[in-house]
Order: sequence, then C-alpha cells, then structure tokens
Amino acid sequence: MPIAVLSALVRPLVEPHLPDGIEAKFFASVEDLMELAPQAEIGWFDLDQKQPMIEAVKRAERLKWLSSIYAGLDFLPHELLLERGVTVTNGVGINAVTIAEYVVMGMLVHAKGYRDVVRAQEKHEWLLDSPGKIELAGSRALLLGYGAIGQLIKPRLEAFDIEVTVVRRSGGEGCLAPDQWRGQLGEFDWIILAVPATAETEGMIGAEELAAMKSDAVLVNIARGEVVDQPALVKALQDKTIGGAFLDVTTPEPLPADHALWSLDNAHVTMHLSGRAQTKMFQRSAERFVQNCHRYIAGEPVEPRFDLTLGY
Amino acid sequence: MPIAVLSALVRPLVEPHLPDGIEAKFFASVEDLMELAPQAEIGWFDLDQKQPMIEAVKRAERLKWLSSIYAGLDFLPHELLLERGVTVTNGVGINAVTIAEYVVMGMLVHAKGYRDVVRAQEKHEWLLDSPGKIELAGSRALLLGYGAIGQLIKPRLEAFDIEVTVVRRSGGEGCLAPDQWRGQLGEFDWIILAVPATAETEGMIGAEELAAMKSDAVLVNIARGEVVDQPALVKALQDKTIGGAFLDVTTPEPLPADHALWSLDNAHVTMHLSGRAQTKMFQRSAERFVQNCHRYIAGEPVEPRFDLTLGY
Repeated sequence: MPIAVLSALVRPLVEPHLPDGIEAKFFASVEDLMELAPQAEIGWFDLDQKQPMIEAVKRAERLKWLSSIYAGLDFLPHELLLERGVTVTNGVGINAVTIAEYVVMGMLVHAKGYRDVVRAQEKHEWLLDSPGKIELAGSRALLLGYGAIGQLIKPRLEAFDIEVTVVRRSGGEGCLAPDQWRGQLGEFDWIILAVPATAETEGMIGAEELAAMKSDAVLVNIARGEVVDQPALVKALQDKTIGGAFLDVTTPEPLPADHALWSLDNAHVTMHLSGRAQTKMFQRSAERFVQNCHRYIAGEPVEPRFDLTLGY
Repeated sequence: MPIAVLSALVRPLVEPHLPDGIEAKFFASVEDLMELAPQAEIGWFDLDQKQPMIEAVKRAERLKWLSSIYAGLDFLPHELLLERGVTVTNGVGINAVTIAEYVVMGMLVHAKGYRDVVRAQEKHEWLLDSPGKIELAGSRALLLGYGAIGQLIKPRLEAFDIEVTVVRRSGGEGCLAPDQWRGQLGEFDWIILAVPATAETEGMIGAEELAAMKSDAVLVNIARGEVVDQPALVKALQDKTIGGAFLDVTTPEPLPADHALWSLDNAHVTMHLSGRAQTKMFQRSAERFVQNCHRYIAGEPVEPRFDLTLGY
C-alpha cells in the first residue's frame, strides 16, 4: 500500500477523507520528516524553511508524487526530481483569489491617494480635497501573465470599465504574444505583472521598458521581485518618469530597512502579504490533496502539475 | 430669447456648444450673480457656499429651470421652487463612478488590513503576516439604495464573487423592499448605504440595526452622515459588536478634531472625498448642461429631474 508522508498540522483536515489504499504517516518535526521521507511514495513535505524540504526530497528515494502548497517551487532540486520521474503538484491557484483582490486594492489606493487619507485620519485632519484623483473607469491595463491569478484579475478589472490587454505565451485572440507588448507599453495606465518566475521572465521589466511607460503609469508586481530590474525601477520612481509602483514582491525579501523603496512616496511596499490575506489556504490545500489522493488511487492524473522543465 | 445665468468658470466648456436661441450670461462673482439672477430663465447658480445660492434662487423670479452639479439639494428652498413651478436638475451620477470605486476600495482596505501595511512601510518594517485576512469572494453584501451609484456598485462587487442583495423602494425580483431588509440584517458581511438623504432614510441605521448585524459585519456609508445614528455607531465600534465602518460621510462635516470616530481602530474616516477622487466632474456637468440646453430649446424634458417633494 502506498505510504503518504505529510505534516501533522493538516492531519485533521486530511485523515478523515483519505481513500482506502493509502497509508498516511504524519510528521510533527523536521526530525520526523527526515526519518519518514525514505518510505514516502506520496510526499507533502512543506515546511516554513526550504533547506529541510530539499533534504527530505533528496532522501525520498521511493517518491512518485510530491505535493506542495507553494506555487513557486524554483528552490527544489528539479534535476533530481526529473531523474527519479517524480510527479510534482503545486499550490498554484490556492491563493489566487486573494492575490487578485490585492491587485485591485493596490490600483484603487494608488488612484485615490488613500495613504494620505490614512495619515490625515491619524492626525484627526479633515481633508478638503482628495489626494488622488484617478478614476479606474476608462483606463487601460496591460496584464502580463494569464495563469490562475491573471484569469481572476481580468474580470475584476473589467467590471471597473478598465480595458484589459493580456499577454500570454500562446498569444491568441485579443491577446498579445511575448514579442508584441514592448512596442505598445506607452499605451497603458497600469502594467500588471502576474507571470511565473522563470529564466524568461527574469528582469523582463528593465530601464528600457520603464522608459517606454507613460509618465503616470503604475507598475503592479505580484509575481516575483526578480521579474523587475529593481535598481532601474527605483531610479524611475525617484525621477518620477512613471506614476508609481505597487510592489507586493521585492528583491530581496525581506527588504532591508535602509532600502530606498521604503521611503519613496510613489512606491507601495506590501511585503508579499497578498497571498496571506485569507484564512482558507490550508483548507483549500488539504481539499486539493485529498482529491488528488482519490485520483492517484484510481490511476488518474494528479493536478495541477508543476512542470520541472518549464519551471511553473 | 431665454437667458441662462451660469458661472464664468464653466464658460470655456459650455459656450462653444450652446444651441442658438439661448443667451448665456456668466457671473464671475457673487455680486454678479445677485445682479444677473432676476433675468435668468435658466440658472446654474452653483457656488462653494450655500447661502448665496439660496439668495440667488430667491431673486430669480423668472426662473423656469435650475441646474446644479450637486446631487443633494436638500438645502434649497423647496417650497419656493415648487410654488414658482421651477424644474430642477441635479448632479446625480456625475460622481457616481468614482464613488462606486471608493466603496470597493473601502471594502478591500478593511478586508486586507491595509492601514497597518501603510504604517509598517512608514516604519520600514517587513510584516510576516497579513493584518487582514478577509476574502471578498464568497461574502454577502446588502446594498441599500439603487440609484446611479448603487447601480455601479453592484456589478463591481459581483465581479469579486460577492453575493449582492439590493434594497429598493420599489422592491422587484431579487430585491428586498424597505420593510424586508431589517429581518435579514444578520446574514450580511457588508451593509452599504447608498440611499438619498430624505426624512425616510434619516437614522435608518440605529442601535437596533447595528445590534442585528454580524459581529464582523462592516458598515459602508457613502450616503449622508444623518442616515446613521452616529452615537449608536460609535458605541457599536467601541464595543466591537460589529467589525468596522468605512465612513465617507459623518455628522457633522468636518468632523471635530476631538471626535471619537477619528481614533477608533475599526473606523475608517474618509472625509467625504469619494466624489472628489476624479477630475472629470466639471467636464461631465458641462456636457450634461449643454445637452439639457438643446433639449430645453427643443421643448423636451431636461434631466435628471430632482423631485422637490421626494427630496431626491
């Protein structure tokens, strides 16, 4: 019978719903995990720290399916997993709803100058005019990346009468292909980064792209800090050649206390919190794992598959 | 030929587009207005201050149509206008888009605890968890008032997978009538006030209604301060019997610096800025006035009509 090794934290959510034919073993500590990993045919090895997760994967020589709550699994030993023929499922989409909500919030707080309203309330000061006067309605957004998150962002923005143009690898009707968007950058009020972190997307927004943007355009990054050439972004914000940046992600994380981004009036730093602004992550992950266990036993493919070659 | 009296501030937006058959006279000061008002058949008397507007209306004995950029015209001498048979058009809808956007922003910043993120950025502090963990998706909103603003709020919220229940005077399918919503208050996560300020809506949210709400329900008021029994609201917020309040409007305005609302952690005070968070108000008002002038000359009804009896 296949043995599944997973955290004791999710035991109450998972155990009552597992199919017959899988034996679950739960780890309550890193030491437990190291001991149990070699027995695992199915592994859900998520920990707060990445190093022991990598170590557990290395020890799991019988592993056939590795499950994770994380969407970005660039830190795993991809070569080794490929070599052993391990199927990997990731947490893509688990946090997508709250991240999409966060994107709209970021655009709205920038548009209305909401931070200054917060500061005025703290001073008990009744402002007579709005510190921000942008309307979302009638503006244009370029959405880079159309995965689980991008697909939730688009209809939310469209409900605000924003014209959304999507960039996706595969192109398609009403979409721009990866080689088309740069020439049209100057036409958008919002540039939203929702791409996976891959070699292809690293530094995709650099000095040239920033220079091509409108002087009041806003960059929204909920992808990875590395997607943006951050020194070039800091310069564009300091020189005010763009309107602002709403950055859920930065390089590095945490951002050092003396980093220039913290104090820029036109930079909004939200500390990679977008995906954490919900309470349903464990529940959704556990449900997905249980569903996949039923599929696994039935000989059906588990999902969503993380492609170890593409890196997302 | 009918004489129209309006502010010199809108002259460049209006004059080139006026139909033949209307003679426009522009006032550059309150004194000008007082002098010109008696000649006006058409009046657009908007000023920053209400008292001289009232005075101008009193002097305008030939007035047939009074236009205003404001939606709430409760301060005008309704009896006098009725007696003289003056048609009144107001600014309802002119600011509706930005107000609807502001409502969603208010819900999102409350949901994600965004004020604490702003404060953390000011301290260069990298938060490890989100101060707010509410998802809009799957929540339920009660929308009181379904005028120009309410009709824009509903589709925006629905795009976030919020289930929206509308309350309108006329009832109708999928809507609640004014006598039905109180009994269901405890079912909603968001109570949104978008009603006009009338005798009927004054104090419609009082101690009883607040007590019927869920302990994490949020009251959003973009109507008028008077729609809420504010002392009862302050008590509910202090006692944390509701989750919070996003108040674009208060009683009085400006709110005195020592008022309890300013310092409550669960009260968001936004100083009646929602309608001002845009730059298109004058342009839209001028376009509406010009359109109405063409209708007036053609003998067609001008709009939107402000009902002096109903008060909206």
